[in-house]
Amino acid sequence: MKRAVVLLSGGLDSATVLGFACREEYDIIALTFRYGQRHEIEVARAQVLASEAGVHSHLIVDIPDSIFADSALTGVNKQEVPKGGKKSGDAAIPVTYVPARNMLFLSYGVACAESFGAEAVFIGANVLDYSGYPDCRGEFLEAFERAATLGTKCGVEGRPIHIIAPLLLLTKAEIIRMGAALGVDYSLTHSCYDPDEEGRACGRCESCRIRRKGFEEAGVFDPTRYAGKD
Amino acid sequence: MKRAVVLLSGGLDSATVLGFACREEYDIIALTFRYGQRHEIEVARAQVLASEAGVHSHLIVDIPDSIFADSALTGVNKQEVPKGGKKSGDAAIPVTYVPARNMLFLSYGVACAESFGAEAVFIGANVLDYSGYPDCRGEFLEAFERAATLGTKCGVEGRPIHIIAPLLLLTKAEIIRMGAALGVDYSLTHSCYDPDEEGRACGRCESCRIRRKGFEEAGVFDPTRYAGKD
Repeated sequence: MKRAVVLLSGGLDSATVLGFACREEYDIIALTFRYGQRHEIEVARAQVLASEAGVHSHLIVDIPDSIFADSALTGVNKQEVPKGGKKSGDAAIPVTYVPARNMLFLSYGVACAESFGAEAVFIGANVLDYSGYPDCRGEFLEAFERAATLGTKCGVEGRPIHIIAPLLLLTKAEIIRMGAALGVDYSLTHSCYDPDEEGRACGRCESCRIRRKGFEEAGVFDPTRYAGKD
Repeated sequence: MKRAVVLLSGGLDSATVLGFACREEYDIIALTFRYGQRHEIEVARAQVLASEAGVHSHLIVDIPDSIFADSALTGVNKQEVPKGGKKSGDAAIPVTYVPARNMLFLSYGVACAESFGAEAVFIGANVLDYSGYPDCRGEFLEAFERAATLGTKCGVEGRPIHIIAPLLLLTKAEIIRMGAALGVDYSLTHSCYDPDEEGRACGRCESCRIRRKGFEEAGVFDPTRYAGKD
């Protein structure tokens, strides 16, 4: 049985990727990172998603806060998460950027893939909604895959590990339609940068707005629990 | 003051690189990994080396054993460390290879460098003594640097992080001569794959043999404590 590593954050995109890899009949090693996110809820959702998918195993890796010294997402410097859209100048890299995050996640994925004899690492990177993130672009993923081929035993021996980003060029609505067709239970996923104490989404941060608009455009029922709505 | 991250294992090579970066007057963030090495002694030596060098800060990162499921160095599957040289066929990748280790270490280095505003990551990779390790070759390091440039905010904005491997093409004797000239105290370093309970080197594993031969060829006094010799 072919095997793959799936990077699983507990969010909508990676849940869709997990559903995609399941349908492709991979034996799956799910890999989740705890890296000073403000919300432990993401990791809990990843655990439920992995369990529901019946993965081979689920590894949770702690990355110390001290590595990412300056990011809104990790909360180390407690920058304000912007409400109501990106900051002025949409070409700018969002303040939610975390230094070299996907490079680090993918490196763990490749190490894990080679250790467990997996042939691919799946990642939910998406270039349309996150065009500001340099590490969500195809050219980065290609360069990384090339480095992984040159830097691993399996790569040098002709069995390179493929970096697969099935959502790379899809809109959020297309991702949601794909996931709905795959039977992904989006009520288990979490996207919000700023949830309330009960884990309900704020509905206002960039991530919430993209997600909500995606469900509307996809014509798929939005099972997200929003703060103040229930 | 220009700043750099130095990957510091506690071994002879990385101690030399630390000395090199100090002489180049970098403000240094030292980065050490605990990843299921059989010998905690390496981390302890790294702490002493970083302290003696007066680094800006020293981060120690835990990488879970579960990531490297099959390696002699991590000890997870308890493979025998070969004595008396490489296994038959010197072109083969040694059993001490750890899946994607340098890729993972360098990714941490890049994340840390971008977080702390450092312009370079120094690594003690060396192609001559470790030609069997795919992730110690210049072509891997170049491919990795390119991926890092494409995948980071600073890289995209024209301030790429450089991957610097000052020992890449040196023999062990040349490294030791360089370190001696820089004033590196090699009595603080550890190289052995199989030390005794007191942390003394076995003198027989591949790492010990390369190290001992290096001191001999360099004509530099070898301060290593060998088991049964004192």
